[in-house]
Amino acid sequence: MKKKIGLQPGSLVYTGKVLETVEIPITHYFYNNKISKVISDTYSDGFSIKIDEKATNWIDVAGIHKVSLIESFGKLLQIDSLILEDILNNKQRTKLEIRDNLICIILKVILLNDKAEEYEYEQISFIIQGNTLVSFQEKENNIFTDIKRQIENRNGKIVLKKTDYLLYTLLDRVVDNYFLIIDELEEKIDNLENKIITNISKADFEDILELKKEIVQLKKAVFPLKEIISKFLDRKMKEFLGEEIDIYLKDLQDHILIVNEATDTLVSRSADLIQLYHSTLSTNMNEIMKILAMISTIFIPLSFIAGLYGMNFQVMPELTWKYGYYFVLFIMFIIF
Amino acid sequence: MKKKIGLQPGSLVYTGKVLETVEIPITHYFYNNKISKVISDTYSDGFSIKIDEKATNWIDVAGIHKVSLIESFGKLLQIDSLILEDILNNKQRTKLEIRDNLICIILKVILLNDKAEEYEYEQISFIIQGNTLVSFQEKENNIFTDIKRQIENRNGKIVLKKTDYLLYTLLDRVVDNYFLIIDELEEKIDNLENKIITNISKADFEDILELKKEIVQLKKAVFPLKEIISKFLDRKMKEFLGEEIDIYLKDLQDHILIVNEATDTLVSRSADLIQLYHSTLSTNMNEIMKILAMISTIFIPLSFIAGLYGMNFQVMPELTWKYGYYFVLFIMFIIF
Amino acid sequence: MKKKIGLQPGSLVYTGKVLETVEIPITHYFYNNKISKVISDTYSDGFSIKIDEKATNWIDVAGIHKVSLIESFGKLLQIDSLILEDILNNKQRTKLEIRDNLICIILKVILLNDKAEEYEYEQISFIIQGNTLVSFQEKENNIFTDIKRQIENRNGKIVLKKTDYLLYTLLDRVVDNYFLIIDELEEKIDNLENKIITNISKADFEDILELKKEIVQLKKAVFPLKEIISKFLDRKMKEFLGEEIDIYLKDLQDHILIVNEATDTLVSRSADLIQLYHSTLSTNMNEIMKILAMISTIFIPLSFIAGLYGMNFQVMPELTWKYGYYFVLFIMFIIF
Amino acid sequence: MKKKIGLQPGSLVYTGKVLETVEIPITHYFYNNKISKVISDTYSDGFSIKIDEKATNWIDVAGIHKVSLIESFGKLLQIDSLILEDILNNKQRTKLEIRDNLICIILKVILLNDKAEEYEYEQISFIIQGNTLVSFQEKENNIFTDIKRQIENRNGKIVLKKTDYLLYTLLDRVVDNYFLIIDELEEKIDNLENKIITNISKADFEDILELKKEIVQLKKAVFPLKEIISKFLDRKMKEFLGEEIDIYLKDLQDHILIVNEATDTLVSRSADLIQLYHSTLSTNMNEIMKILAMISTIFIPLSFIAGLYGMNFQVMPELTWKYGYYFVLFIMFIIF
Amino acid sequence: MKKKIGLQPGSLVYTGKVLETVEIPITHYFYNNKISKVISDTYSDGFSIKIDEKATNWIDVAGIHKVSLIESFGKLLQIDSLILEDILNNKQRTKLEIRDNLICIILKVILLNDKAEEYEYEQISFIIQGNTLVSFQEKENNIFTDIKRQIENRNGKIVLKKTDYLLYTLLDRVVDNYFLIIDELEEKIDNLENKIITNISKADFEDILELKKEIVQLKKAVFPLKEIISKFLDRKMKEFLGEEIDIYLKDLQDHILIVNEATDTLVSRSADLIQLYHSTLSTNMNEIMKILAMISTIFIPLSFIAGLYGMNFQVMPELTWKYGYYFVLFIMFIIF
Repeated sequence: MKKKIGLQPGSLVYTGKVLETVEIPITHYFYNNKISKVISDTYSDGFSIKIDEKATNWIDVAGIHKVSLIESFGKLLQIDSLILEDILNNKQRTKLEIRDNLICIILKVILLNDKAEEYEYEQISFIIQGNTLVSFQEKENNIFTDIKRQIENRNGKIVLKKTDYLLYTLLDRVVDNYFLIIDELEEKIDNLENKIITNISKADFEDILELKKEIVQLKKAVFPLKEIISKFLDRKMKEFLGEEIDIYLKDLQDHILIVNEATDTLVSRSADLIQLYHSTLSTNMNEIMKILAMISTIFIPLSFIAGLYGMNFQVMPELTWKYGYYFVLFIMFIIF
Repeated sequence: MKKKIGLQPGSLVYTGKVLETVEIPITHYFYNNKISKVISDTYSDGFSIKIDEKATNWIDVAGIHKVSLIESFGKLLQIDSLILEDILNNKQRTKLEIRDNLICIILKVILLNDKAEEYEYEQISFIIQGNTLVSFQEKENNIFTDIKRQIENRNGKIVLKKTDYLLYTLLDRVVDNYFLIIDELEEKIDNLENKIITNISKADFEDILELKKEIVQLKKAVFPLKEIISKFLDRKMKEFLGEEIDIYLKDLQDHILIVNEATDTLVSRSADLIQLYHSTLSTNMNEIMKILAMISTIFIPLSFIAGLYGMNFQVMPELTWKYGYYFVLFIMFIIF
Repeated sequence: MKKKIGLQPGSLVYTGKVLETVEIPITHYFYNNKISKVISDTYSDGFSIKIDEKATNWIDVAGIHKVSLIESFGKLLQIDSLILEDILNNKQRTKLEIRDNLICIILKVILLNDKAEEYEYEQISFIIQGNTLVSFQEKENNIFTDIKRQIENRNGKIVLKKTDYLLYTLLDRVVDNYFLIIDELEEKIDNLENKIITNISKADFEDILELKKEIVQLKKAVFPLKEIISKFLDRKMKEFLGEEIDIYLKDLQDHILIVNEATDTLVSRSADLIQLYHSTLSTNMNEIMKILAMISTIFIPLSFIAGLYGMNFQVMPELTWKYGYYFVLFIMFIIF
Repeated sequence: MKKKIGLQPGSLVYTGKVLETVEIPITHYFYNNKISKVISDTYSDGFSIKIDEKATNWIDVAGIHKVSLIESFGKLLQIDSLILEDILNNKQRTKLEIRDNLICIILKVILLNDKAEEYEYEQISFIIQGNTLVSFQEKENNIFTDIKRQIENRNGKIVLKKTDYLLYTLLDRVVDNYFLIIDELEEKIDNLENKIITNISKADFEDILELKKEIVQLKKAVFPLKEIISKFLDRKMKEFLGEEIDIYLKDLQDHILIVNEATDTLVSRSADLIQLYHSTLSTNMNEIMKILAMISTIFIPLSFIAGLYGMNFQVMPELTWKYGYYFVLFIMFIIF
Repeated sequence: MKKKIGLQPGSLVYTGKVLETVEIPITHYFYNNKISKVISDTYSDGFSIKIDEKATNWIDVAGIHKVSLIESFGKLLQIDSLILEDILNNKQRTKLEIRDNLICIILKVILLNDKAEEYEYEQISFIIQGNTLVSFQEKENNIFTDIKRQIENRNGKIVLKKTDYLLYTLLDRVVDNYFLIIDELEEKIDNLENKIITNISKADFEDILELKKEIVQLKKAVFPLKEIISKFLDRKMKEFLGEEIDIYLKDLQDHILIVNEATDTLVSRSADLIQLYHSTLSTNMNEIMKILAMISTIFIPLSFIAGLYGMNFQVMPELTWKYGYYFVLFIMFIIF
């Protein structure tokens, strides 16, 4: 946040890492119960997108690193500067903004990174205004590929419905993706559990703390969704969203609750991991001490007896006894 | 959830393990204050069930692995595809769905597994629509056997009442069954408690974690019931449920509260188990250390004295004293 | 609960331990601002009690092990079978049932057991219907002796008031009795605290867990009272209870809050006990280790030196020095 | 509470320790915008106080051990017996009672004990009825000395205001006094913290538990004040308290919140103390073990080598080597 | 608080440390859509500031150590003495006071101290009354420098707006500054985490406790902001704040929520630190014990055997065997 301190509210600054020279691909879908059309292009500064008033418009913007381009959208759809500022700042918390003329949803989406090896959080923003939905993503990805194909192929009921159903479909897809990271985290917990039980090491605790941070990050992404979906189900939202979308939103709410429950389970399992770590250490220690105590209890007295008869006193009657040695061995065997 | 990601919402996919070739037994009970009739058959695809408008209809479907059959029910009773999707997906959370024309309750029921050795969670869904109640179970079982017999034998007041009382009776039976698993978990806790006190081992902690997971699973099954029963007691439900069912539902609510309290007690007892585990380890360690310290404190100084007079210096006056040895033994005895 | 699973709701089954052959003593008090009368008898099956419409009636039933007798009461006062089932089942949670014609309160009372050595929980149920109050207890006891005497002797204002004041007086007495068990538990905690500080043993932790279970039992008995008394103070209750009872109920609420606070204090003190247990173990261990370390640190190097000069090498110049022995003793003394 | 169990509700019993023979000093202040008068006397049984209808009356009763005197007040101001019972019972929880004709506030005040060495909790009760405020204290003290002087000297705005402002001033004084005990407890925590860090001992943990009990006592005294002050700010209180007192009450509420926050900080700091205690023990133990391990690791192998060459075998070639001894010393030095 | 106990409510006492001889700099900005003017001066007692009714007035008071000067402001703006008392007392909690004629906000601001080395908390109070906003700070600082420059240079929309927007801008700046201390605390936690992992010492735990105190202080500063901003968004505030300020306030609310979330993360990370501390100690201990046990297990039996053959019995056949010594060495090697 540091570099933004001191700026006027509503100042537009891009906070991500993409180079500003990269052009932004924008795909414009418009469809109604008769036709589906797609216009794809990459833009650098100005842009020539026109909203088709008779169709449902979905404009997918795959980049937010060109402030001027985002500003053009702001003018086209009359988005105020505070919302534009939020869209550009990729450190936003998951949230819903309601204005008189539009609603804006900002959330985190889980994507495989470029090398398809690790899951990453990226920010995605939706602007819904009448028959237009704009989605701002940090970079190109294939999370909505199947939805795009449904629109192009006029497959399923999406082309018969409006922006509210489109929004629901996109959100449902974003929420479904959370299961990828939940599954990964569950696997990590299982592995750590096994590692601690079989071969505990100092690094495991650092791994647990690392895992806790990841779970906290997930929790921050999914927890506010519960409130947002509740607001959607409020009556006030009826002006933006149609009546019939209700049962779909309730279905979405259900998925969000499942994601939240799964996250809570992760939280409590990571706490269990810490307890497992400590109990394993304690049990190991206990076993070490048992062996140590057993050996000490046996050999320390025996060594003392051996030491006793290793003394060099001139007068030690036992030493001259013929069977003294055997007698002492016998005593030791008894003690043993 | 993985295989469902990317599908359109409302896509019907069966998520359980039963082979699709197995036919589904469906039993149709219809009864009113005059007669009780039963029609049983197994179905594979189409089905020929007719709702008797003048009677209370209970259709018990003992299998959800044939998507097309479930779809037929959907058409018969005008169930929307989102609810059908939930019925088919056996990983649902306990929940209540209210539509204009029907209510749907999905919950987990505790059953003995096929070998009658272990308790299992299975999903059960109830659809209530006017004078018809349909119950979808994952496979055949005998949880409702006594209720079925009451209907057939026209025993008790069930045949005099409508679907609301039938629903209450079925739910009451499901809730009663939770006590089976609660009793089993209590027994497991008692056993673990004894085992930790008498002979603690590393495996006990893993058992505790295992137990905690089982309790969390139970909690997930029973916790949402509190909210569902509250919704039932709301005034809005009066259109689906008759007025007089109220005191029965309050009774059911009471049982649900008892189940929830018992589950909470299990949660807190499992936390106590962890503390018992650690305190037992600590106490054991303490006792080992006490013995070790006692032996060390006695024998280490004695061994030193023995070592002292085991030195080979040519001039060590004590060694030549006649009673040196006895004197040293006496000193050692004093120290001891 | 096991034996009740599978029965129809509202089935009357006695779940306690009293032999069914024992007759049930019933005492019927009826009094108004002019007279006080008492009729006492023991009953086995039928009974011949008549409600005096012009007086306040208190029927104290000292036993619930005869199902048919309880059923007779059910008919007399038109109590529905679900409430009768609750009265007979002595494993109920503390609760309040409101019907159109009556209210039913079920709670736990603390009594000294037969040998006056230990406190026990017993279930008590109150049915209030117009000018009649029926109290069902598990067996005869003397908890209400002083209230009975006040009625017989026409002492205090109780005989001038109606069932609402009688109910308040009885409840107040029940709540007062909780202090007996609270005092006992506090004493147990004090004793355990002392025992842990002076002479900790493995059994203490088991005692703490036992104590926690007792406190949980108390908490279950007293916690729901808070909600019940709140419901009493609601306006809806005005049809059952008079207006002027309000300040008495608020007084009762106060006592219930004190009992709940005291119980919460017990809960937190029992948690403190566990911490005390562990800290005492740790401190003991620490002290043992300090001694062990001190002795080891001193004697291990000394023993090594002694061992060194106990070696049998033919060429060890120090051994032949005249003051070698004294020099080594001096070195040891320095180290020491 | 024990001795009160079994009494009728509203029975007046004094539960404190003051001898009943001690006379009770009562000071009666009455003042309005023209005059201030004071009448002081000690009373044993009857009393001759007359309320001045044209002035604000403050009657400060410095003792509650004479039941009959308190009863006289009850008659004078028509206080019902349940409230009188509360005033006499010095084990009350902080609370507010609202009747049609009066309000009663009972709270705990912090006073220096007789030897000015330790802070004590005493119960204070306020009765407000129209232009009269009565304060009942357990014994004479100087907590309100400065307020009394303001009235006598007609200093400040107190003499221009009514009982509502007087009540606020007295409550404000009582709340201010809590800072005395908060400061003391903070100091105790600081001292314990230092003691644990510099020289931990078993007694420290007992001190922590003692401290926790004191903090719980404080919490019980101050926590209910939050709710009481909220009730004061409710509209219903307008009949007892004037409109303009509102901003003073909000100020008081602020102080109460600060006291509560400070108490919460004490609670969390005492929990930190326990963690500090355990971590200090662990760190100490760790350091002891490090030293012990270091010494053992060095000297145990060395002693073994020395023991090896202390064996008396006839054939041990090394013993006859000329430089055998020096070679072994060198080996030991290497190991070391 | 000690020195204030016993004073009349509303007594004006300065509780900070600045010497009373230092003069207080006051800067008066007044601006509207046409002009911007600034009057700066330092004052000691009286002051000559005049509110310009046709402009937005911002009076920045950089000192609160002169009670009489603050009193003059009180008279000018008709601020009641309770609020003035709060402004002077720099130990206030973050709060919002609403009066009929003004609102007062008191909060803590994070500033670099004089040597620019450490962050400090200072109290800042805002009084808003019609077209006038007064800010009281403890001493001169540069937190609002850029906002002042915007006004002077007529840069940005601030000069076109009223006190509500000015207030929002100032609050936004204060909230932004919290990130400075959050970043610092995060860094401290990271450092401590590294230090504990690489080289744990007793001082680390004291550092953790110190850190926890700092986090608690931050939490106290930022937590009440959530409620204050909610109150601002309430409808009642419309008389003080314009309608259009709403979206700015929601933006501010968002920042406040982020600050609060970040603080909660700090709280949970500091708890993790404590666990890391203990687990590191335990793991270290475990490793020490493993080494100790290994060495003891090997060398104690070996030493015993060496001691055995160091005994001086006259009859010990093994000693005379030619290969006795080598045989024993071989035995030892086997044991090893």
